[in-house]
Amino acid sequence: MKLYEQVADELRQRIDRGYYRCGDRLPSIRSLSREHGISIATVQEAYRLLEDQGLAEARPKSGYYVRPRPATPAMPAISRPAQRPLEVSQWEQVLDLLCASEQPGILALGRGMPDIDAPSLKPLQRALASGPGTSGHRGLAYDSLRGSQELRQQVARLGVDSGCRLHPDDIVVTTGCQEALSISLRAVTRPGDVVAVDSPSFYGTMQAIKAFGLKAMEIPTDPVTGISLDALELALEKWPIRVIQITPTCNNPLGYTMPDDHRRQLLSLAQRFDVAIIEDDIYGDLSYAFPRPRTIKSFDSDGRVLLCSSFSKTLAPGLRVGWVAPGRYGEQVLHMKYVGTAACATLPQLAVADFIAEGHYERHLRRMRAQYQQSRDQMIAWVERHFPAGTRISYPQGGFLLWAELPGDADSIRLNERLLAQGIRIGPGPLFSASGKYRNCLRLNYSDKPDARIEAAVRKVGEEATRMLLELNRVA
Amino acid sequence: MKLYEQVADELRQRIDRGYYRCGDRLPSIRSLSREHGISIATVQEAYRLLEDQGLAEARPKSGYYVRPRPATPAMPAISRPAQRPLEVSQWEQVLDLLCASEQPGILALGRGMPDIDAPSLKPLQRALASGPGTSGHRGLAYDSLRGSQELRQQVARLGVDSGCRLHPDDIVVTTGCQEALSISLRAVTRPGDVVAVDSPSFYGTMQAIKAFGLKAMEIPTDPVTGISLDALELALEKWPIRVIQITPTCNNPLGYTMPDDHRRQLLSLAQRFDVAIIEDDIYGDLSYAFPRPRTIKSFDSDGRVLLCSSFSKTLAPGLRVGWVAPGRYGEQVLHMKYVGTAACATLPQLAVADFIAEGHYERHLRRMRAQYQQSRDQMIAWVERHFPAGTRISYPQGGFLLWAELPGDADSIRLNERLLAQGIRIGPGPLFSASGKYRNCLRLNYSDKPDARIEAAVRKVGEEATRMLLELNRVA
Ligand SMILES: Cc1ncc(COP(=O)(O)O)c(C=O)c1O
Ligand SMILES: Cc1ncc(COP(=O)(O)O)c(C=O)c1O
Repeated sequence: MKLYEQVADELRQRIDRGYYRCGDRLPSIRSLSREHGISIATVQEAYRLLEDQGLAEARPKSGYYVRPRPATPAMPAISRPAQRPLEVSQWEQVLDLLCASEQPGILALGRGMPDIDAPSLKPLQRALASGPGTSGHRGLAYDSLRGSQELRQQVARLGVDSGCRLHPDDIVVTTGCQEALSISLRAVTRPGDVVAVDSPSFYGTMQAIKAFGLKAMEIPTDPVTGISLDALELALEKWPIRVIQITPTCNNPLGYTMPDDHRRQLLSLAQRFDVAIIEDDIYGDLSYAFPRPRTIKSFDSDGRVLLCSSFSKTLAPGLRVGWVAPGRYGEQVLHMKYVGTAACATLPQLAVADFIAEGHYERHLRRMRAQYQQSRDQMIAWVERHFPAGTRISYPQGGFLLWAELPGDADSIRLNERLLAQGIRIGPGPLFSASGKYRNCLRLNYSDKPDARIEAAVRKVGEEATRMLLELNRVA
Repeated sequence: MKLYEQVADELRQRIDRGYYRCGDRLPSIRSLSREHGISIATVQEAYRLLEDQGLAEARPKSGYYVRPRPATPAMPAISRPAQRPLEVSQWEQVLDLLCASEQPGILALGRGMPDIDAPSLKPLQRALASGPGTSGHRGLAYDSLRGSQELRQQVARLGVDSGCRLHPDDIVVTTGCQEALSISLRAVTRPGDVVAVDSPSFYGTMQAIKAFGLKAMEIPTDPVTGISLDALELALEKWPIRVIQITPTCNNPLGYTMPDDHRRQLLSLAQRFDVAIIEDDIYGDLSYAFPRPRTIKSFDSDGRVLLCSSFSKTLAPGLRVGWVAPGRYGEQVLHMKYVGTAACATLPQLAVADFIAEGHYERHLRRMRAQYQQSRDQMIAWVERHFPAGTRISYPQGGFLLWAELPGDADSIRLNERLLAQGIRIGPGPLFSASGKYRNCLRLNYSDKPDARIEAAVRKVGEEATRMLLELNRVA
């Protein structure tokens, strides 16, 4: 990150966390220059960046001010999961969600699919089509165990954007991020171990915890700053936690991006208690802030972070191209990779490497970040308009997933069942908890361009939720 | 299997097992007709098939005789592995083999690659190239958890050839056979359990046993009939074995095909001791006998066989398209599939489905079976000619892998190291054992069309082995 970007980032974090509120005057150029010991020109550049990001506005002769943002609805409260390690349940619910997306004619508002309609993906289709011809035998042969060299080079290069210095040999290509998470978990745990997770948390990881005979210690998580470091510290003191698994950037499902100082503190905690960190960065490149946030991995000095990601959300999930940078756990991860799938499909890797090398990836990201950010605002407006009063809504910093907390005793699993009859599928909250918490919460996908069909669906979800709440009140 | 094929098959098995030896007169048409209660015409058809297979010849006015086959060298003795469950070692050796195939300029005689040069694979390359265009978005989206419907339909259809009645929903597509084996193992075991395996045995499964905290009970295995049922029964009585994992058809590395009656007996044993069977059929379609042997799965009445396979050996490993028919363990296998990789790459699946549906698969198999059978005979001749006297050689019934047992104290790991300097890589025997047995054995690949370069390499292997043996004798 350049100096002016760092300054802008710090200001942005202060705005995001409410130190400066809408309409507040921001520090003067001169004072910032003094505070940080940097040139006036650098501060000016930082402010220009904040202007570009729509966060600050210059008022003539007066300085910079926090720009009014559309009044946002209340955020969900910090989560309060169980206070002890638990076995993970909910597989039936997850299976149900996974299989539902196969039913034609269902509007899958609960799914994790990106927009694969974007014209900026065209060159990817071209690369896929020409791959068999240009790579010849190579595409048919076993790829190397770590994955194709071309792709690992590109991934290492992209790592710079998140502050990472990676060598291609530090990277193992995987069948999607799911395999990256799965082999990372297997590499650093033994059955019976406890894994600390942010909560709510992606169900794919939770189910892996279940499958591998591990227990999940769900840590209270703030919808703005992420996992509670205090609660995590207490848990580390109390339970035999072996690894911390979190998605700190554009979190699924809450949408927050953890501030840099929290990342540093988290890393110190991990060092102090000598545990590993599995960092899921799958949505990181879809952060609305530019430059994108740094990974925890980028602060890691002793190789205890296993950084997992894939091109499933940034490009297309059907490619199943993911990767892990396993740090000091490289050998165990490679063994788990080998016994799990031996190698990845060769051609999709080569197509992705080609797409990135030709500069299409950055172009596509620019487009999608802007599109998703707009869609977020639209989706929030719709949810606010159509959902029952008292609904709390997340404010995603990237990606395309929204989290809504319904008031009262709303039950998202029953809501989902009732919506299915109307051809709509949401992501029920309990999927994101080891023990089926978050029953009054749901996840919505806003990757598709907002249109009347989607608004109608959101309205139906809201109406059905309202109806259910009324029924409950009548009974009570 | 048709009636005449059954009769021919039984005769073939009797010949293979030495009841009838080269030059022996085979039973008369009339006596066979009486013995089996079938028509003369059916027996005649059976003999015609045996003639086609080069096993029998008619002598005018005298009947059918076992046709002389080229004198085959001695087979390896039945294996004598450790007599108790062991933790698996050898990962370094396996890693070494896997990474060696990435070095350019090395003749990888030890690898498991099929011939991907065959012109009958051309339509596959075409299907891969046209897939992105014809499948559009579908190729970019998450495939369904079980795998694409088209592919599962084709796999179910092919199952008929091995005597299986499979429904597409009985099948889960995997990232190669390795994932099929890996999730099957995970689905039926818990850490600490014992897995009975044929021995020598494919290192991929052995390493999975290691990774999942299981123990391997290696069972003595006959190079003609496969796993010793007596030894297996003793082991089942003595140890807490949870599952039997074997490759009964065109075994890797020994090349045998287990007779049908052994398959039935194995299944009874599994029923009696209530254990599951993981049947690896990856080379089954490359059986030189036509029709191909039945799977154990085809005899299975209570769903205890998990049948694993892939198109890595029959088509191309870089596709990573495999599958498992998990029987009664469907739910656990699906869970393991989900947490391991979530879904498989979509486009390779569609290309394979297309290739099979268009009839290219059967055509390709016919070609490859014939080619590999010829190459086997050539490879055996070369090994016989160039390897030290006293070398024993397997007689593969399908696939493209040969197993050689060197005399005396030959050490295949050191041999491999010395050959590397000459640009040749073999598959050292200890990779195929939990505890590094078979040090005097090695695996050779004969998938490439035999040519002078390969003969030269085989000669070098033989010369180096002879040299090592002489050195050993001199020291002794
Ligand atoms: C946070 C998170 N991690 C991992 C995954 C799995 O990604 P992939 O499809 O690349 O396996 C997902 C997909 O939904 C996800 O949301
Ligand atoms: C017997 C056996 N099973 C499984 C495998 C793994 O196959 P795949 O490449 O489809 O994962 C191999 C490959 O060498 C093998 O020989």
